Amino acid sequence: MVNQEPTGIVMMNLGGPRSLDDVEPFLRNLFLDREIIQLPLQERLGAFIAKRRAPKVRGLYEAIGGGSPLYDWTTRQGRGMVERLDVLCPETAPHRFYLAFRYTDPSSEQALRQMAADGVRRAVAFSQYPQYSCTTTGSSLNELWRTARRLGLAESFEWSVIDRWSAHPAFVRAMAAKVREGLGHFHESVRGDVVVLFSAHSLPRRVIDRGDPYLQEVAATVHDVMREIGGGHEYALSFQADVGPVAWQGPSTESVIRALGGQGRRHVLIVGIIFTSDHLDTLSEIDIEFAEVAEQAGVTDFHRAPAPNDDPVFLDALAEVVADHLRDGRGCSRQFTLRCAGCDNARCREILNPARAHRRTDPGTERQPALPAHRSTR
Amino acid sequence: MVNQEPTGIVMMNLGGPRSLDDVEPFLRNLFLDREIIQLPLQERLGAFIAKRRAPKVRGLYEAIGGGSPLYDWTTRQGRGMVERLDVLCPETAPHRFYLAFRYTDPSSEQALRQMAADGVRRAVAFSQYPQYSCTTTGSSLNELWRTARRLGLAESFEWSVIDRWSAHPAFVRAMAAKVREGLGHFHESVRGDVVVLFSAHSLPRRVIDRGDPYLQEVAATVHDVMREIGGGHEYALSFQADVGPVAWQGPSTESVIRALGGQGRRHVLIVGIIFTSDHLDTLSEIDIEFAEVAEQAGVTDFHRAPAPNDDPVFLDALAEVVADHLRDGRGCSRQFTLRCAGCDNARCREILNPARAHRRTDPGTERQPALPAHRSTR
Repeated sequence: MVNQEPTGIVMMNLGGPRSLDDVEPFLRNLFLDREIIQLPLQERLGAFIAKRRAPKVRGLYEAIGGGSPLYDWTTRQGRGMVERLDVLCPETAPHRFYLAFRYTDPSSEQALRQMAADGVRRAVAFSQYPQYSCTTTGSSLNELWRTARRLGLAESFEWSVIDRWSAHPAFVRAMAAKVREGLGHFHESVRGDVVVLFSAHSLPRRVIDRGDPYLQEVAATVHDVMREIGGGHEYALSFQADVGPVAWQGPSTESVIRALGGQGRRHVLIVGIIFTSDHLDTLSEIDIEFAEVAEQAGVTDFHRAPAPNDDPVFLDALAEVVADHLRDGRGCSRQFTLRCAGCDNARCREILNPARAHRRTDPGTERQPALPAHRSTR
Repeated sequence: MVNQEPTGIVMMNLGGPRSLDDVEPFLRNLFLDREIIQLPLQERLGAFIAKRRAPKVRGLYEAIGGGSPLYDWTTRQGRGMVERLDVLCPETAPHRFYLAFRYTDPSSEQALRQMAADGVRRAVAFSQYPQYSCTTTGSSLNELWRTARRLGLAESFEWSVIDRWSAHPAFVRAMAAKVREGLGHFHESVRGDVVVLFSAHSLPRRVIDRGDPYLQEVAATVHDVMREIGGGHEYALSFQADVGPVAWQGPSTESVIRALGGQGRRHVLIVGIIFTSDHLDTLSEIDIEFAEVAEQAGVTDFHRAPAPNDDPVFLDALAEVVADHLRDGRGCSRQFTLRCAGCDNARCREILNPARAHRRTDPGTERQPALPAHRSTR
């Protein structure tokens, strides 16, 4: 059975400048995002801050090869994912992936226009942030819906949302595999002494105080990954990228690395637990900055667990997460509908033109798989 | 086989004033604990703050029956636990329990003296805080070791430590059973709409920033309990008891309840996820204060999941946690040895006169259970 109408999987992420000239526009878009930062005269002040920070950030990207590899990694991930999905879920095949980056091209607009051109009707907004935060997934989703409305495409697609997959068993297995790979960098004789330091992007405390579920989500991934590893290592959770004048959730990764060194710890494996691809936070902040901090602090044996990137085990995980979602017929996670306590955006947590629940495939009628409800009604 | 020498299980907890006259001494001991709060001229200022706060806190205890029920609950828990342990672990029977409260009688000193009188040699320091924090379990342990040294009992016992059990399957099952019991308070027709609000005692942010693992531990319990429940409810984690002039980890439970009401949520189940017994935080802060907040906010259907107290399922869990510990032969959790990044107490995380690892019981020699190594050497 060939299904002519493709299922669109929209891979949402922050994006990153692909060349040095893209750095300032990237920063400008970031500082214009009111879901991350609220500034007086946002338009002007955001552009001003972006302009001022651009030279420094350009330098950082220069040091990692002249741009962010996020586009390349996400493209490979998307390709690997849809290949697997076509096998796993023939009833919704073919599957096509679309990148929707929040602060660089390809944007939500490009994704939506391409989906319309491709004749997509059933669409899945798949956050590439496994752990939910309003500053990441929330911002991307709201942008996606706004853009669809602006383009007159509000009714064009039937949407469901993969808003979090922080504890999906396939994701946990994939992350645990990367941690094991990281542990392989240490000599067998010291491997038992390695402290596994999970480092997540920090959030401003006011976002946490508003009730953002990010901390809970990150802690759940850490917990499940360590359980999968088997409990043979000490571990801690800390937070990085805490720059700027606001108060951030602690403890800071940098301070923890210094302190571990001060306590005589020599072997530290750092794990970027919220990053599914390499980008500035792994390649620059961890591999350059923190590696220096570690050396100064006497952590002589400092390694990073590789990011999932295009590891086949991770591509399997991406496909399984989507396959489970397509099969279970729910439009979003049970948690998605609970707005943050301090949320003042009444539209937050909406799903534009939601797909009706799929009927579950009845195992007794395998030869005639039930089509998703939204297809059978057209 | 009767083992004449009892195994001592020391149940460490904060304690609570059993009568209104105990309130001020309780507060004084609390404010003298430098592992919780550092004051200039601690001795005098701590006593001063305790005196000033005592009348208000007396009033709170008056409203819940004139004192803390913690002593009674812990005694019942201890009794239920050792009865079960004698059956589960005949090789270390008889088991005796001893209460060691941090800020009221029975103190560590009373526990240790009684253990010596009872001829205990093998001793387990069993924190009654399932989630580890230096301000709770850490403080109790350090007090226990200090007291043993002061009393000249440093060599009298061979210690191991149950420093955390936040994700022990038996504890998770017991907590999930209490959440289900709480959900039973809601009419079936609205049960699916209930928001489960896990409320934990807050910690000062400087403690979190120091690297205290408490947040990670609490989040792990919440995650596992919700998984055990089956994912049918929205849930959130918030923090209570955030009084005084320091900055606390948020979001605050009170603000979350208000916000849920403001968002039109009518059905909220609150779960004290770090309390294994009722005490002021459940009976007063939740049942009186927060119930009022909920009513004002329009949360018309507000219930609390019962504390574990002497629920047989929880007594089973206590016994299983200790039995697993006695059997696995480890002196503490893998995490215990990792000091907080910002820790300045080089003695923190020590174990006084540690018991040598038990030999595991070989399943092939069941008739001759291997005795713990420390016994076979005497």
